[in-house]
Amino acid sequence: MPTSIIAGMSTFVAVDIGGTHIRAAAYQEDNPTPFAHQRVRSLAKEPGIFDRLVATIKSVWPENERVQAIGMASPGPLDPEAGVILATPNIPAWQNFPLTNQLSQLFEVPVYLGNDANLAALGEWKFGAGRGHHDVLYLTISTGIGGGVIIRDRLLQGFHGLAAELGHVTVLAGGPVCSCGYAGHLEALASGPAIVRYVVERLQDGAASSLHDGIKFNARDVADAASQGDALAREAFERAGEYLGIGVASFLHIFDPSIVIFGGGVSQSGPLLFEPFETSLKKHVFNPHYLDNLAITTAALGDDAGLLGALARAQMG
Amino acid sequence: MPTSIIAGMSTFVAVDIGGTHIRAAAYQEDNPTPFAHQRVRSLAKEPGIFDRLVATIKSVWPENERVQAIGMASPGPLDPEAGVILATPNIPAWQNFPLTNQLSQLFEVPVYLGNDANLAALGEWKFGAGRGHHDVLYLTISTGIGGGVIIRDRLLQGFHGLAAELGHVTVLAGGPVCSCGYAGHLEALASGPAIVRYVVERLQDGAASSLHDGIKFNARDVADAASQGDALAREAFERAGEYLGIGVASFLHIFDPSIVIFGGGVSQSGPLLFEPFETSLKKHVFNPHYLDNLAITTAALGDDAGLLGALARAQMG
Repeated sequence: MPTSIIAGMSTFVAVDIGGTHIRAAAYQEDNPTPFAHQRVRSLAKEPGIFDRLVATIKSVWPENERVQAIGMASPGPLDPEAGVILATPNIPAWQNFPLTNQLSQLFEVPVYLGNDANLAALGEWKFGAGRGHHDVLYLTISTGIGGGVIIRDRLLQGFHGLAAELGHVTVLAGGPVCSCGYAGHLEALASGPAIVRYVVERLQDGAASSLHDGIKFNARDVADAASQGDALAREAFERAGEYLGIGVASFLHIFDPSIVIFGGGVSQSGPLLFEPFETSLKKHVFNPHYLDNLAITTAALGDDAGLLGALARAQMG
Repeated sequence: MPTSIIAGMSTFVAVDIGGTHIRAAAYQEDNPTPFAHQRVRSLAKEPGIFDRLVATIKSVWPENERVQAIGMASPGPLDPEAGVILATPNIPAWQNFPLTNQLSQLFEVPVYLGNDANLAALGEWKFGAGRGHHDVLYLTISTGIGGGVIIRDRLLQGFHGLAAELGHVTVLAGGPVCSCGYAGHLEALASGPAIVRYVVERLQDGAASSLHDGIKFNARDVADAASQGDALAREAFERAGEYLGIGVASFLHIFDPSIVIFGGGVSQSGPLLFEPFETSLKKHVFNPHYLDNLAITTAALGDDAGLLGALARAQMG
């Protein structure tokens, strides 16, 4: 494999495998704007997803330049060191699937794999809201809560590659059941579905609201109702913010980062979530030093965080 | 500063500042058996503790060899990078006290400072139960719960040096109040005083036991009662083990270590604590892969963990 000096500019291909779309992009050096980009529906539950993945990568593959490596972000659980997808809920065909081996044989370059939330953290650290920081806590809040942690410029991955599952940390033992089936996790208290569930439960108890039980609504609808003054909807976000503050206080005590970055759809709810969150965080941090020069911000890369994290991973080698 | 090749054997001095005792020891190379050792009462609340510390270090200082560095373990909170004790409850005189600067001026060698639980983890990793592991979770359970974490052979310290406060993580929001004043921390549910408090509260509710409210007892007494068949005492340990399992499951999800090491007096309670703990851990781990080849063990270094951690810290430079 020629070094970048021999080959001219270093070229990398990054891939983000989502539940609904596969994205691939080709990059030169550290430039986070790709010179080629493709996005296709993953049709993840249908057979043939591996072939669609290969075709998507080929569509961005440069003709006249040697690619140094492929970086890949995928939902977990996965084993980043072995490059194996253990079981990902959206892609039933991939059980213990040796993804990086298969791709490196086909494309004849090294392939690196990482959990999507972990790589989003890496992307934000290298190209986004976390630039210049060495200790980053990243949380993505949407239908689930995912995490990624950078410690002294290195991604926390753990012995089995399963670290930083920050949504699956118990903050209220015996509390509401999480999507994973276990009780009292942060995800069960502060994710989008947790906000919706709280509203539904209170409606069933007879609470007044502009939202109606029986008519399907999502966290975005609750946010809209809250911004129109709906008391129950506001209460649902206040409760989520309270638990998010409790969880993040614990994460400060655990990791002591210099920045906390929020990604994911629910983190776009603005003050509705972040005012009660910040109040709760300050109330629950057990030593004020944790807050000295601590930055708290939303993610800068939007939907590109996974792709740019995959790029950063490929560049790290 | 001559290198070890010029100076012959490398010599290090390690110090462990405890609430009741100061210990200092001098070591050669990687040999964890000191060639000089001193232990004095710290009389921490009386004035003059710094002078007693200096005298203790001098008493182990080698006459004919050059010391490479001093490593120091102290209760926190402290700033390991600046070498400053922020405020340690047992030593009122040391508020924002620049400990390493003062000592390095006196002894003319570099001085390194770390939180006692963090350095105990480092000691167990280098010299004790964690040898050969790269990802270590260490918990000390006694009157409090302290933590130390090694990630890929590096000590987790955080941006302000306040990381790994694993006793002060909320596992039961709104739960019993911790020694730090905040509710529902692991320390408030699984430390020695938490076990005692549970027994006292149940006695006050009229529960039958060989232990009596009004007569002072500690976690050791509860353990003795439990091993003599006292149902309430057993229940207190079962409850602590249950919460410890919930907390450690979260720490697996967060750090994904290859070994969990328990230090501190309460961790010597044996199956009384660890049977309910292991049951709870297995029940609360949300993906069985975390347990693959995971070692769970008690600390190997006993009271020397802090001292040997300080040695390891000094050697790392």
